[in-house]
Amino acid sequence: MIPHIVPLADPQLAVRLAQAIDNKTKPLGSLGALETLARQIGMIQGTATPTLREPAILVFAADHGIVAEGVSAYPQDVTWQMVENFLAGGAAINVFAAQNACALQVVDAGVAHDFGVRERLLDRKVARGTRNFAVEAAMTPDQCAQALRHGMDLIDALPGNVVGFGEMGIGNTTAAAALMHKLTGIAVAACVGAGTGLSPEGVLHKGRVIEAAVQRHAGVDAPLDVLATFGGFEIAMMAGAMLRAAERRMVLLIDGFIVTSALLVAARLQPAILDYCVFAHCSDENGHRRMLDTLGATPLLNLDLRLGEGTGCALALPLLHAAVNFLDRMATFASAQVSEQSA
Amino acid sequence: MIPHIVPLADPQLAVRLAQAIDNKTKPLGSLGALETLARQIGMIQGTATPTLREPAILVFAADHGIVAEGVSAYPQDVTWQMVENFLAGGAAINVFAAQNACALQVVDAGVAHDFGVRERLLDRKVARGTRNFAVEAAMTPDQCAQALRHGMDLIDALPGNVVGFGEMGIGNTTAAAALMHKLTGIAVAACVGAGTGLSPEGVLHKGRVIEAAVQRHAGVDAPLDVLATFGGFEIAMMAGAMLRAAERRMVLLIDGFIVTSALLVAARLQPAILDYCVFAHCSDENGHRRMLDTLGATPLLNLDLRLGEGTGCALALPLLHAAVNFLDRMATFASAQVSEQSA
Repeated sequence: MIPHIVPLADPQLAVRLAQAIDNKTKPLGSLGALETLARQIGMIQGTATPTLREPAILVFAADHGIVAEGVSAYPQDVTWQMVENFLAGGAAINVFAAQNACALQVVDAGVAHDFGVRERLLDRKVARGTRNFAVEAAMTPDQCAQALRHGMDLIDALPGNVVGFGEMGIGNTTAAAALMHKLTGIAVAACVGAGTGLSPEGVLHKGRVIEAAVQRHAGVDAPLDVLATFGGFEIAMMAGAMLRAAERRMVLLIDGFIVTSALLVAARLQPAILDYCVFAHCSDENGHRRMLDTLGATPLLNLDLRLGEGTGCALALPLLHAAVNFLDRMATFASAQVSEQSA
Repeated sequence: MIPHIVPLADPQLAVRLAQAIDNKTKPLGSLGALETLARQIGMIQGTATPTLREPAILVFAADHGIVAEGVSAYPQDVTWQMVENFLAGGAAINVFAAQNACALQVVDAGVAHDFGVRERLLDRKVARGTRNFAVEAAMTPDQCAQALRHGMDLIDALPGNVVGFGEMGIGNTTAAAALMHKLTGIAVAACVGAGTGLSPEGVLHKGRVIEAAVQRHAGVDAPLDVLATFGGFEIAMMAGAMLRAAERRMVLLIDGFIVTSALLVAARLQPAILDYCVFAHCSDENGHRRMLDTLGATPLLNLDLRLGEGTGCALALPLLHAAVNFLDRMATFASAQVSEQSA
């Protein structure tokens, strides 16, 4: 069921990409991170002339039983209220996706609310929120598998070759922090942050809730078991979507702390998935920097964002276009008759 | 002759901007640097509903007598060849400006080449390159004043309210490093970098050339004298343009090492100019980080660019749009009926 992801390895293409980049009218290496990005996108697409087609951001929303432990600064109703905001076009991700000509899909992965049939909402609700992982596993193995499968199917329906991931779910930084701790071994205190705006005392409480839950579920260590026990429906669905997207050789655009926790699960299952990932930004949420470090990731943006929704993906998208565009459109030293470096 | 720049100070507007930002449907402060940017642009424009109109990047090109000392990895002809590349649309700045719907103007501030009359080139040539500041002052006081005035006039002709600055000039990192040393007192070694790609030995030589020139011109300390002695025509023209742009309450978008050196001169003349500056990026050129630090500047992007041309400005422009757009278009908690933070 889990897609097999092949590492990117084509030394001849790597040489062709390097030559194409170095022949452009600019000092060697002077486009920095954009050159790295152009090489990566070329390698993913298997061509020295990559293109970006119909980029889309999928925003996955779900609720979390763990909110019963008082781990969030906002009430759980904000999850469905923000889904309504997405559908009405009033959220930050609507503004940034529209600005950067990016399609936006909103997925109900498991919100504790009945939206009815809504034209612009993709109903993939696994259940009305996970169970409280302070007490029992967040989801059953079947629910987890269902979420993964929905994620894969959503990717199969996309027309483009770039997909960004976003999420909404009150309580999901708690799930993501628990996943981070279990999958990296990093101390809980270094994984836990303020989320939507907890006080320092609230952050300490959140950490204690996670510590206790980790004790309760001792012995749960396999990535999919960790996901089912501590994760969320939106996180599991993103992990499935990411795996399929990499299998289809799409460019994966990774957002903040929660999205990266989904990738962490996916990468434990298929480490080569990381070859296909562009890290949009480093968020201001405590733990994200360390999580990125464990993945060997260099984020494009550092803007102290901590909003989620895929906003970092939408904001980073112009840099992906810039990488592909300079490779496609800049003159070469030869074509522009510009002298090359002496010596 | 030097415009007088007033500091931005309107406490009531600052409160209105903060309220407008905080009422948007997102956790408080969660848009990080974009919130800072929205506040700044609002303060510059004197409104809680700022807009960006017809952004333009001006690329100033000039040659430098100091190249006679062997301080660049590229021959001087590359300056005019790259101007031709700009006019033909083949340079990185052409690609990035077009991608981000930014107008581009190319200015001959003092290139050692006869372009003839060219439709898309603004001829503001002060002279065919500066003189060699290892031997004598780079320009006369009159030439310096002329460059400043041309810069101001160019701003007066712009239709929009955002202006980015870019440059092209073989040898100009040497001029910029000398200006940095003279205007900040930071040791030459910390001001000098590889420019377009000098070897470590080349960087040492460049530092020695600057040290010797500083000795030769001992006692030159007033900002405009330092500019005339060590600067370049493109740097002086940018300084003039920046001063006028701030006087007209435009948003100034500051690029890399050389552009920031022009701002350094302008800020020594009119410190309040810094209120109007958005720092596009921190470049990979040694010295830029320290130069930004001395200005108290936080750059938006850190992409290891070291290309110049205003490329960082063009790449940062979508973030300015994002800042203005979220302020303009996002729903408020009240309008979207989203619950606010508890407690």
